[in-house]
Amino acid sequence: MKVLITGVDGYSGWPLALHLLNRGHDVSGIDNLITRKRVAEVGSHSATPIASMTRRIQAVHKHLGKTLRFYRGDLCRWEFVRQVVRKERPDAIVHLGEQRSAPYSMIDVHHAVETQVQNVTSTLHILYAIREESPKTHLVKMGTMGEYGTPNIDIAEGFFEVEYLGRKDRVPFPRQASSWYHWSKVFDTGDVMLANRLWGTAATDVMQGVIYGTRTPDIDRPEFLTRFDFDEVWGTALNRFCVQAVLGLPLTPYGKGRQRRGFIALEDSMQSLTLAVENPASQGEYRVFNQFDESYSVTDLAQMVVTATREDLHHEAEIHNSYNPRVEAEEHYYNPHHENLLKLGYRHSRTLRQSLTEILTDLEKFRSRLESHREVVMPRMDFRTPDNRKPLHIPG
Amino acid sequence: MKVLITGVDGYSGWPLALHLLNRGHDVSGIDNLITRKRVAEVGSHSATPIASMTRRIQAVHKHLGKTLRFYRGDLCRWEFVRQVVRKERPDAIVHLGEQRSAPYSMIDVHHAVETQVQNVTSTLHILYAIREESPKTHLVKMGTMGEYGTPNIDIAEGFFEVEYLGRKDRVPFPRQASSWYHWSKVFDTGDVMLANRLWGTAATDVMQGVIYGTRTPDIDRPEFLTRFDFDEVWGTALNRFCVQAVLGLPLTPYGKGRQRRGFIALEDSMQSLTLAVENPASQGEYRVFNQFDESYSVTDLAQMVVTATREDLHHEAEIHNSYNPRVEAEEHYYNPHHENLLKLGYRHSRTLRQSLTEILTDLEKFRSRLESHREVVMPRMDFRTPDNRKPLHIPG
Repeated sequence: MKVLITGVDGYSGWPLALHLLNRGHDVSGIDNLITRKRVAEVGSHSATPIASMTRRIQAVHKHLGKTLRFYRGDLCRWEFVRQVVRKERPDAIVHLGEQRSAPYSMIDVHHAVETQVQNVTSTLHILYAIREESPKTHLVKMGTMGEYGTPNIDIAEGFFEVEYLGRKDRVPFPRQASSWYHWSKVFDTGDVMLANRLWGTAATDVMQGVIYGTRTPDIDRPEFLTRFDFDEVWGTALNRFCVQAVLGLPLTPYGKGRQRRGFIALEDSMQSLTLAVENPASQGEYRVFNQFDESYSVTDLAQMVVTATREDLHHEAEIHNSYNPRVEAEEHYYNPHHENLLKLGYRHSRTLRQSLTEILTDLEKFRSRLESHREVVMPRMDFRTPDNRKPLHIPG
Repeated sequence: MKVLITGVDGYSGWPLALHLLNRGHDVSGIDNLITRKRVAEVGSHSATPIASMTRRIQAVHKHLGKTLRFYRGDLCRWEFVRQVVRKERPDAIVHLGEQRSAPYSMIDVHHAVETQVQNVTSTLHILYAIREESPKTHLVKMGTMGEYGTPNIDIAEGFFEVEYLGRKDRVPFPRQASSWYHWSKVFDTGDVMLANRLWGTAATDVMQGVIYGTRTPDIDRPEFLTRFDFDEVWGTALNRFCVQAVLGLPLTPYGKGRQRRGFIALEDSMQSLTLAVENPASQGEYRVFNQFDESYSVTDLAQMVVTATREDLHHEAEIHNSYNPRVEAEEHYYNPHHENLLKLGYRHSRTLRQSLTEILTDLEKFRSRLESHREVVMPRMDFRTPDNRKPLHIPG
């Protein structure tokens, strides 16, 4: 199949390109390489030394004997998006090319606006480009489990049957996002739903949990490494805990650390997206996948990192709960459903504990890249402060 | 009280300024006058001959003996918004300054992006300006009943208590908008909810029905007239039916005409917004008002216009159902709740039938302005077509 990946230079986009190429698909990609700049903007870099896009493409050619067609450009430029879609007319577009950090969106008003404007604009451009240039293209759009928030009821897979005052309907599951970034993903979801109603655009809307891991089986040589962020703005809690453990710093869960989230291994996220691409939604169909395997609390994660540090790195790590910069329930019910990927044959391939060995081993290898940036892994932000670039007063 | 109105040059903004001034409030306003340009862009103009903003302000001074402080500028410019809010530090901001036409947002990709980007940016700027410059300001934000769509259950007032798989929670009522514009209002709602959670911003979120009318008691001289749009892009169905009736053209409900919506008189919308301003949400409170009086189907409206034409203008009008350019259920359940304004003392002041006499009489007065633009009142758009500026094939 012909697959176009937006955000092909990113943490997921790059291993997805490798995976689809290895499975024999014809892959092209779009990126403006802005995540590299944005991570530099907050004073950080990838823990893994990643190759430039040019070197990545050369390595694909040399080692896989394949061609990855790369279009460097901005999804916020309509003519660029339209021309790429017209040229490629892909079977599927996997849309990963968005600003993906909640803390980045909370830095100040400009980062809030930038996140929502760019994410919404890029999705609208892709929807219109599909409609105008390639109406049969199946859109696989990356959303987040964070769109749902943490209601005190089970979280359905996109839609739920509800009874209210004696009448019933199947309606979208309510969204309650907790950052400007997470709302931008809700906005995308609304626009994709509408394009499906207006034009019958075939769409798979992926509500993804937090991804973890430094490796997939396709990442089997240094040029194929994908990025791994560990600073407070771009790294996930698990990534920060792993780097803190390697550096001998305390692990810093926010608040009580009982916030639960759904998680999935990088390799299994690739499996899921591939299943979505290879088993496309039909014309007129809009389907939602809650894409995660297991849910853990932040404290669960920290404790697993402590254990893995002892067993794999042979030293101790400590947990110091820190001030919670986020506006979120610290103790809550959490039972999201995830059936739709299982129906397509999805199987969980590895546990978080197995991945931790791999992550910590990789991070040990690149320790000097962490040592030189050890200040960015400790908490400094506060979502309640409208300008996080001003010096912060951190309570507690 | 000190009240800042964004979109003060608009259909609702201008009579709201007059009403609040007449009630003794200290009123300021922001506008970039872009609606006048956008209506000209689609080849139309206001049925009522409206004064320029400069003349409006002079008339307020001369006839009411009051000063309306006017800031001409764009809500998408952060420094402008921040400086006005810093200077005014109002008790309330009534935020009406958005692109408000669903068909305009459906013209093509650029109008879709413009609508969503500008509406979301302006709301984020206002939220941050309140947080940074005037944190006690109460935000009254204009949304639309169209955010809810037409589910097969009662529509709650913002939130509903739901039982799902044996557990209960109070969650936002699901949103199912049917244009890029309507989604932009859902996006605003999400952002206002989040600002309230992050910073405790006091907010009243108004889900307003379709407004009708050419007059309020405050519009008692020609300089005080507010705009009245009648073209397919900017005019409501009712406005178009009235103008069609005056011009002796057939009334053109879309499709079966059984689509039901909530309606409210311009005068009663002013009453509602004033109640919201004078009875503010408290710090930390986020409340939702479903702001409409009665619901009618499009056919009900057309038939009432036929009757009013016969009784008030003494001629006949015919109904010709036309192709439905929108993607909407043409027959559906519709029972939205509206309790919260009643609790504040809201009373419906006039019926739609009474308003129709006034609208038709006013339109007769300005007949030459309608005659010169008669082509813009007939249906031409198709929401299913991604570029409505290309020549349209209208089925049926």
